[in-house]
Amino acid sequence: MLNNPALDVVFQALADPSRRDMVERLSRGPASVSDLARPLDMSLSAVMQHLQVLEASGLVRSEKVGRVRTCRIEPKVLSNAERWFASRRATWQSRFDRLGEILAEQEAQPKPRTRRRS
Amino acid sequence: MLNNPALDVVFQALADPSRRDMVERLSRGPASVSDLARPLDMSLSAVMQHLQVLEASGLVRSEKVGRVRTCRIEPKVLSNAERWFASRRATWQSRFDRLGEILAEQEAQPKPRTRRRS
Repeated sequence: MLNNPALDVVFQALADPSRRDMVERLSRGPASVSDLARPLDMSLSAVMQHLQVLEASGLVRSEKVGRVRTCRIEPKVLSNAERWFASRRATWQSRFDRLGEILAEQEAQPKPRTRRRS
Repeated sequence: MLNNPALDVVFQALADPSRRDMVERLSRGPASVSDLARPLDMSLSAVMQHLQVLEASGLVRSEKVGRVRTCRIEPKVLSNAERWFASRRATWQSRFDRLGEILAEQEAQPKPRTRRRS
């Protein structure tokens, strides 16, 4: 099985509700750190720590111009994680389809006669 | 923004490569704990610990019949996590579409005359 260390840090980053909120906000468009902090009940330094985790995972990148740090989502990293789920679903679905086929074949076969016990 | 504690434990569970391997295996069909342990380079007790994390997240359920514990995937919990990514993608995509429209409108407008500096 393939090892994908990127998914380790992506899922780790998304395991926190504040970081998911930040990703949700950024999927609506770029935002400054203050924009990100506004709806969250935490200090700016706590927001910066969460931002560091998000940047380390590759989900978010940021750029400082003058005194303002602007953050953006990295859609490719989100898509990569989404694909992991899609692959599991495809595997599970194909197994489900095979089970359906086996069941249909069994129903199509003539039933064995039931014998009375002598 | 909605808080979804279920996603906390689901993403936390999936942040580990061995647990992702176990979910991948179970998406191909039910398996015993020994089946799950076979491809993984770890003790049966370590596998049991990972299984407990997966069960606590709702991603996997298991049932013991006689001496064999059989594990199954819970597709709804996987789908719920996949939906989180799909929602982010939809938001991001619609913003991208709007930006495209704005750009198209601007191009359709007559260009302002350029003035030479006097």
